[in-house]
Amino acid sequence: MDEPFGKVEVKIALIGGGTGSFTMLSELKNYTSRIAAIVNMADDGGSTGVLRDELGALPPGDVRQCLVALSDSPKIRDLFSYRFEEGTFGGHSFGNILLTALEKTTGNFTEAVETASEILRINGVVIPGTLDDVRLRMEWPEVSLVLNGERVIDADYFKHDPRRATLSLAPNPAPNPTAIAAIEQADLVIIAPGDLYTSLGPLLVIDGIGDALRRTNASVAYVCNLVTKEGQTAGFTVSDHADEIERFAGGKCLDYVIYNEERPTAAVAERYKAEGAYLVEYDEAALSRAHYTAIGGHFIGGMAEGHAADILPVTRSLIRHDAEQVVKTLLDEYGRSRKI
Amino acid sequence: MDEPFGKVEVKIALIGGGTGSFTMLSELKNYTSRIAAIVNMADDGGSTGVLRDELGALPPGDVRQCLVALSDSPKIRDLFSYRFEEGTFGGHSFGNILLTALEKTTGNFTEAVETASEILRINGVVIPGTLDDVRLRMEWPEVSLVLNGERVIDADYFKHDPRRATLSLAPNPAPNPTAIAAIEQADLVIIAPGDLYTSLGPLLVIDGIGDALRRTNASVAYVCNLVTKEGQTAGFTVSDHADEIERFAGGKCLDYVIYNEERPTAAVAERYKAEGAYLVEYDEAALSRAHYTAIGGHFIGGMAEGHAADILPVTRSLIRHDAEQVVKTLLDEYGRSRKI
Repeated sequence: MDEPFGKVEVKIALIGGGTGSFTMLSELKNYTSRIAAIVNMADDGGSTGVLRDELGALPPGDVRQCLVALSDSPKIRDLFSYRFEEGTFGGHSFGNILLTALEKTTGNFTEAVETASEILRINGVVIPGTLDDVRLRMEWPEVSLVLNGERVIDADYFKHDPRRATLSLAPNPAPNPTAIAAIEQADLVIIAPGDLYTSLGPLLVIDGIGDALRRTNASVAYVCNLVTKEGQTAGFTVSDHADEIERFAGGKCLDYVIYNEERPTAAVAERYKAEGAYLVEYDEAALSRAHYTAIGGHFIGGMAEGHAADILPVTRSLIRHDAEQVVKTLLDEYGRSRKI
Repeated sequence: MDEPFGKVEVKIALIGGGTGSFTMLSELKNYTSRIAAIVNMADDGGSTGVLRDELGALPPGDVRQCLVALSDSPKIRDLFSYRFEEGTFGGHSFGNILLTALEKTTGNFTEAVETASEILRINGVVIPGTLDDVRLRMEWPEVSLVLNGERVIDADYFKHDPRRATLSLAPNPAPNPTAIAAIEQADLVIIAPGDLYTSLGPLLVIDGIGDALRRTNASVAYVCNLVTKEGQTAGFTVSDHADEIERFAGGKCLDYVIYNEERPTAAVAERYKAEGAYLVEYDEAALSRAHYTAIGGHFIGGMAEGHAADILPVTRSLIRHDAEQVVKTLLDEYGRSRKI
């Protein structure tokens, strides 16, 4: 492996949902095994939603993606990621079924995640943001509009400005103390790219997470999305994204914002457009005035393949960061800041 | 652990279906890690049948039971044995789902079993009797009667003497060469207790298995059932059972037959009766004339609990051997024979 700046054993806490965290973790694990992935627990769509509804399980989907990203065993990675294509199990991810069965046999979700971590031989730990059974809620108080459930919110085409909406979890959950400890003890906290209202928001609004982000001695970096989400964040600039992150967290907490300044090729731009996605614009004037350090770079990666047979399909962006470049930029900046 | 005759590291090949093998393996593993469990692959009932029918999988059920018996990891044993109680997965055993997903991701059943063995950290190996996709067939040529499928045969109340029926697999399978090698290389081959026509027969009629049993230098012992099966082996004595075993195997192959001579308590006899089961009688005159050595003992064990939520319930006897006594008797006899 090419290691231009040597192997760093920095303690990293990564905050995110499934896909954005997967991309970042797959790269971060090349640099350090001291990774804590703090995971959104409000997912209620697809295979995860069925398991929650039918078996009262906590949502396994995002946890599964983080576990797979951190695993070193290719055969068992393939197994966890396998999605049944037909019959009774059609559309279900094997890893979700496994986590649900483990929750039943061990009696709690924390032990389920630990046992799955042993089976997958992962580097690092995966930490649910909360262990309470919660549903996401988005409310526009001025117009008395409420959306309930992550799947519903994810699929919605917002009629009102989401920046005027309140995001919350119901019932109001306790934070997982291990998640708080991970943020406090990290050297670097990374907020992964992800949907603002259905991946990152549901984590950041948990009581105590925002305070921990402000209290920690770690550098806190947010990796801004490459593209906007149709009907939700159309027209949002980089600083608009960062502002929403801090609003969810209850105040200023970011030291760095990593954003893309690469222009996609015409072919890639076409594929973005097919998803109703447009490049997030960066507003240099606003970024230069911000209290955080904004760092641009060329971060456009390939596009992931979609799942052919997801049940109750949920819109999932196929657009990915060039995680190698993002992680290099982050660790380079982290190294520089520590040397001063 | 109490080891009255010391730890023996004898190479044992055990031939059987799911439940009888489970009981024997759970005890045998206390004495040796050199165990090869050769497993019936004609099962098509319950959770296994659904996975075969819907996903074209090879039957995981009996393999799963042997894997669990040989595992040292209590948490992962519980996971493999877990049966979903409700919803889409109701009645399905998690271990079956896992083996089927592994068959899909690794591309073949042998690798699926190997990977599952790693996950479960088993002592010994589990070897499917054949890797072909087969169904059991029982035919009374004299009356042109054919029964197709293990589940059907298992549930049938035979109208004609089963000893006049031909048992076969369709299509006619190749034996798993690893199963043949295990029989050839073993010091002791044990034919586990189990249903004659739906657990042991389907293994013993595979081409090459019977020849290997005659060719091997190992001692070959059959552990006879405690009770008869209603509508199938009612009235069968110990030697009747042994005769059928050798008929399936195509000729004489047994060195030892282990049989029970303990009388059950009235309470236990009542529970047997509730299953339509009666103690297998031993016919001392016939046994003394037999070419094998018949060894009686007190082998009545407890009764196992049934599964509450098996789908498409299949009749499974809840009556169990006292495996500790059976294994002691077998290894004692084996030790004695080798000392001469």
